[in-house]
Amino acid sequence: MSAGGANRVKPMPNEAKAPARDAFRHFLPIATRWMDNDVYGHVNNVVYYAYFDTVINRYLIDEGGLDIAGGGTIGVCVESHCAYLRPVAFPDTIDAGLRVAHLGRSSVRYEIGIFGQGQAEPSAHGWFVHVFVDRLTRRPAPLPERIRAALERLTDTSP
Amino acid sequence: MSAGGANRVKPMPNEAKAPARDAFRHFLPIATRWMDNDVYGHVNNVVYYAYFDTVINRYLIDEGGLDIAGGGTIGVCVESHCAYLRPVAFPDTIDAGLRVAHLGRSSVRYEIGIFGQGQAEPSAHGWFVHVFVDRLTRRPAPLPERIRAALERLTDTSP
Amino acid sequence: MSAGGANRVKPMPNEAKAPARDAFRHFLPIATRWMDNDVYGHVNNVVYYAYFDTVINRYLIDEGGLDIAGGGTIGVCVESHCAYLRPVAFPDTIDAGLRVAHLGRSSVRYEIGIFGQGQAEPSAHGWFVHVFVDRLTRRPAPLPERIRAALERLTDTSP
Amino acid sequence: MSAGGANRVKPMPNEAKAPARDAFRHFLPIATRWMDNDVYGHVNNVVYYAYFDTVINRYLIDEGGLDIAGGGTIGVCVESHCAYLRPVAFPDTIDAGLRVAHLGRSSVRYEIGIFGQGQAEPSAHGWFVHVFVDRLTRRPAPLPERIRAALERLTDTSP
Repeated sequence: MSAGGANRVKPMPNEAKAPARDAFRHFLPIATRWMDNDVYGHVNNVVYYAYFDTVINRYLIDEGGLDIAGGGTIGVCVESHCAYLRPVAFPDTIDAGLRVAHLGRSSVRYEIGIFGQGQAEPSAHGWFVHVFVDRLTRRPAPLPERIRAALERLTDTSP
Repeated sequence: MSAGGANRVKPMPNEAKAPARDAFRHFLPIATRWMDNDVYGHVNNVVYYAYFDTVINRYLIDEGGLDIAGGGTIGVCVESHCAYLRPVAFPDTIDAGLRVAHLGRSSVRYEIGIFGQGQAEPSAHGWFVHVFVDRLTRRPAPLPERIRAALERLTDTSP
Repeated sequence: MSAGGANRVKPMPNEAKAPARDAFRHFLPIATRWMDNDVYGHVNNVVYYAYFDTVINRYLIDEGGLDIAGGGTIGVCVESHCAYLRPVAFPDTIDAGLRVAHLGRSSVRYEIGIFGQGQAEPSAHGWFVHVFVDRLTRRPAPLPERIRAALERLTDTSP
Repeated sequence: MSAGGANRVKPMPNEAKAPARDAFRHFLPIATRWMDNDVYGHVNNVVYYAYFDTVINRYLIDEGGLDIAGGGTIGVCVESHCAYLRPVAFPDTIDAGLRVAHLGRSSVRYEIGIFGQGQAEPSAHGWFVHVFVDRLTRRPAPLPERIRAALERLTDTSP
């Protein structure tokens, strides 16, 4: 499980402040599943990363035309992080918020917020770095144009 | 999937150097499962956190006497992080290395390395913060003595 | 993965005919997740059972008042089965259909159909038997009245 | 969770008798993971199918030379079933027993038993049907010779 109703441990000095709902430009509702809960009665900490993967890849597919079955360029995760603030549990539906913090030539750093429905403050928030690579050689490749355009719409500074 | 065969993205300035196998004091072999692999053919980034959860809780149960079914004090995750360096895939068995980076009154910060068998350099490494709480009130509680003693044996400075 | 585009193996003599969408009285849309797909590019056979668990327990909670955290009577699975007819894949959303084939004193046999959206014929169909037990003794217990009433609404012979 | 300590529901007339440990010719020890347990404190019914997938595919890879990344012929699941007799729970390690009940031209029916270590009677048992198909067309294909030879060693009637 994740943070439960526990008072939060003292924040790490380098920790990003938890972003509120209005900091995100894109949301995907995700229904929790029975198996998401663990022995302690709330969604297991691992499962939040499955929500991250899902909101990111859904966006890349729907808005950027990512072809996970046969496309020549794919995104692989090189780093991920999550801070857990308050628990969620099956049968809740959560809203996964997504924004882009940094967009490089072949990499992108996403920030994700997990919100209970109707809540302004996140239950958890984290980040995730994708490097885009050639499917066969697995060497870094420039972001495909359509994906770049889709991700630019999620950056903080886009109009 | 995780980092694939890709050249690693330029490290973040604040990133911890990847710890080698001899930096860890405890190991648990974990057999990968068919479902651990994703569409891109390697263990999915999410699954590494299931390995983290497993090596940590196995240690707490086996060495610290943690009672996940009925104990009065339980550990909840408040923060986790993973950096992915090279892929692993089913049917590999991996070694999960565990050490303790910080041991507080009611919290502990673990570091974990995921190693291919026979490999000195990790495939992935990360950290994970547990806050121990009262099972019912979910308020922070001191680490039970037997758990504290077990975790001290995994700190860097223990003899 | 499950049956893929493969021609179906010759049906077993005792196999139930695949039920069409109009055979079900209750549906839950379930969004697939990135991790649901396996190496072969479609939702893994295991994951269908997570859909079964989810449609069943959501119905028991929403309509029958099942309290998974503290209720005195809980449902445990004693048998499950699935036949896979055609594949589904992330990022599809599926509709999970649910009906009740048999309602006993302390047990219930559900039938589930997994449908692509807008499709009349199932991608997969299966069944699942719950025995209701006392949470503490784990001995069979009569179905709570509110749950029984909710399940009767899903039986074939209800008006 | 699965059957818990519950008395078993009355067996279905067509149900196979639970096979004991000595009915199996091949075993794979599988360590449970933290996430395998559900809210009710035991391994979730879904997870047993992940054990099935794992013992089967490990055997096909190790003994039959199945190449899941690039081989021309792959096995897809068309039907699966599990009966749950008594619970297992993290941190247990289970033994997954495997035998072959029927070997056709392009399909195979496996039987699996899940045993607590040192136990003669299964915690759960089930079956699983693979159809081998061409990876690209997904049409049934004859079992590759090396796989057939490996599976014949697991049939009841092999010497």
